[in-house]
Amino acid sequence: MTPQTPTRWKLVLEYDGGGFVGWQRQDSGRGVQQAVEEAVRALSGEDTQVQAAGRTDSGVHALAQVAHVDLLKPLDGDTLRDALNHFLRTESVVVLSAEAAAEGFHARFSASERAYLYRILNRRPPPTLEAGRVWWVPTPLDAAAMHAGAQRLVGHHDFTSFRASECQAASPVKTLDALDVIRDGTEIRITARARSFLHHQMRNIAGTLRLVGEGKWTPDDVTRALDARCRSAAGPTAPPEGLYLTHVRYDDA
Amino acid sequence: MTPQTPTRWKLVLEYDGGGFVGWQRQDSGRGVQQAVEEAVRALSGEDTQVQAAGRTDSGVHALAQVAHVDLLKPLDGDTLRDALNHFLRTESVVVLSAEAAAEGFHARFSASERAYLYRILNRRPPPTLEAGRVWWVPTPLDAAAMHAGAQRLVGHHDFTSFRASECQAASPVKTLDALDVIRDGTEIRITARARSFLHHQMRNIAGTLRLVGEGKWTPDDVTRALDARCRSAAGPTAPPEGLYLTHVRYDDA
Repeated sequence: MTPQTPTRWKLVLEYDGGGFVGWQRQDSGRGVQQAVEEAVRALSGEDTQVQAAGRTDSGVHALAQVAHVDLLKPLDGDTLRDALNHFLRTESVVVLSAEAAAEGFHARFSASERAYLYRILNRRPPPTLEAGRVWWVPTPLDAAAMHAGAQRLVGHHDFTSFRASECQAASPVKTLDALDVIRDGTEIRITARARSFLHHQMRNIAGTLRLVGEGKWTPDDVTRALDARCRSAAGPTAPPEGLYLTHVRYDDA
Repeated sequence: MTPQTPTRWKLVLEYDGGGFVGWQRQDSGRGVQQAVEEAVRALSGEDTQVQAAGRTDSGVHALAQVAHVDLLKPLDGDTLRDALNHFLRTESVVVLSAEAAAEGFHARFSASERAYLYRILNRRPPPTLEAGRVWWVPTPLDAAAMHAGAQRLVGHHDFTSFRASECQAASPVKTLDALDVIRDGTEIRITARARSFLHHQMRNIAGTLRLVGEGKWTPDDVTRALDARCRSAAGPTAPPEGLYLTHVRYDDA
């Protein structure tokens, strides 16, 4: 018998991070990865790993996480998507699309850009319909000042001040391609694009930009925090529930 | 002792209808009205009724429900808003604003227009982040056809076909000022404006327009259903979780 060659599938996933301990399984509970791997096993009988573009933290949401999985079972993409969603029906994660990946595709290593959104609800009353979906900041924030402060972080920098102490990345040097802050009514949206991000980088940026929005910090203070290359020089870590992985780009896919 | 004159307060409320049996208290559970009245009592010691512009059904949400309440306790609007929100902190309802009402103001009887939004998530995978916030319709819907069908309902009509059998309104004749259907990505939004609506009118309209969106009905079928003046002639009642009371207008306030 010749061994079969598995098909590598590219999956786009949406999830509510609130029900999970993050992408990866932890001693403390269930990971998104585990939920998807169990659905794959229920569908195919194959015990295989699901690899994601970004290992989101506990409570962080995804509008379009990308993952790959290798399967021997012959299937078409729409059937795979619908069957996985059937087995995921009690979970807060769905497969938006499934397609056969190009030769050599790797969800994590082939990604050329990740995009994140951080949502702040900026009003006195707490959230109701958006509870668990936004960071509630009741003090008035100046979005234009936050945007000005954000521009100090765009470009190629040592982001040690914005990196979680337990971050495992080899280098704290990253290139932030874009960081924009806009207001839409009572909501402030921070959007960012980069090839890759450090652990907690977006949440530490959001926590720092809040200080600028409140007028406690100037854009120059953001530059000083960046230059200090020391985590305690920047603002506090914003909570995970405002953060969304929104897009992963693949240049050759 | 001269009896004090109470101040009539106009409250704008936002709520997640999923946690309530509707605006009004039911034997089956807790109403939004009850939650707000309990907060008023906790704040003021006054046992008073809160009257709303629209008595939303179980599971229906509000982005800006309007209510009024009479209070003897002297307060300013911002303090009233913040204090009510303090007592409502374990509930999925908040007071967005509180202001002293004009002479003769009545949240229900002074309202000159109500606006509703009905949200449909139109894609194969079920909702995750929007679960409980949208009606999930996996079959493809033609929003332009739905909009064309919707125009058959705009104007002054006998809406018996779109009225719940238990509706208590004196007359089934209403004027629907606007009914629009647009698509935004995988979401279809039905918006409507009228002086007042019949019980289940929006949900029965949404259930009927779905039939048009699926191609099972033509706009002429919508006219036939309207002309039949019989509930069973129109489509099924759409679920409450897609429906939002978005605005109440007062001409003299």
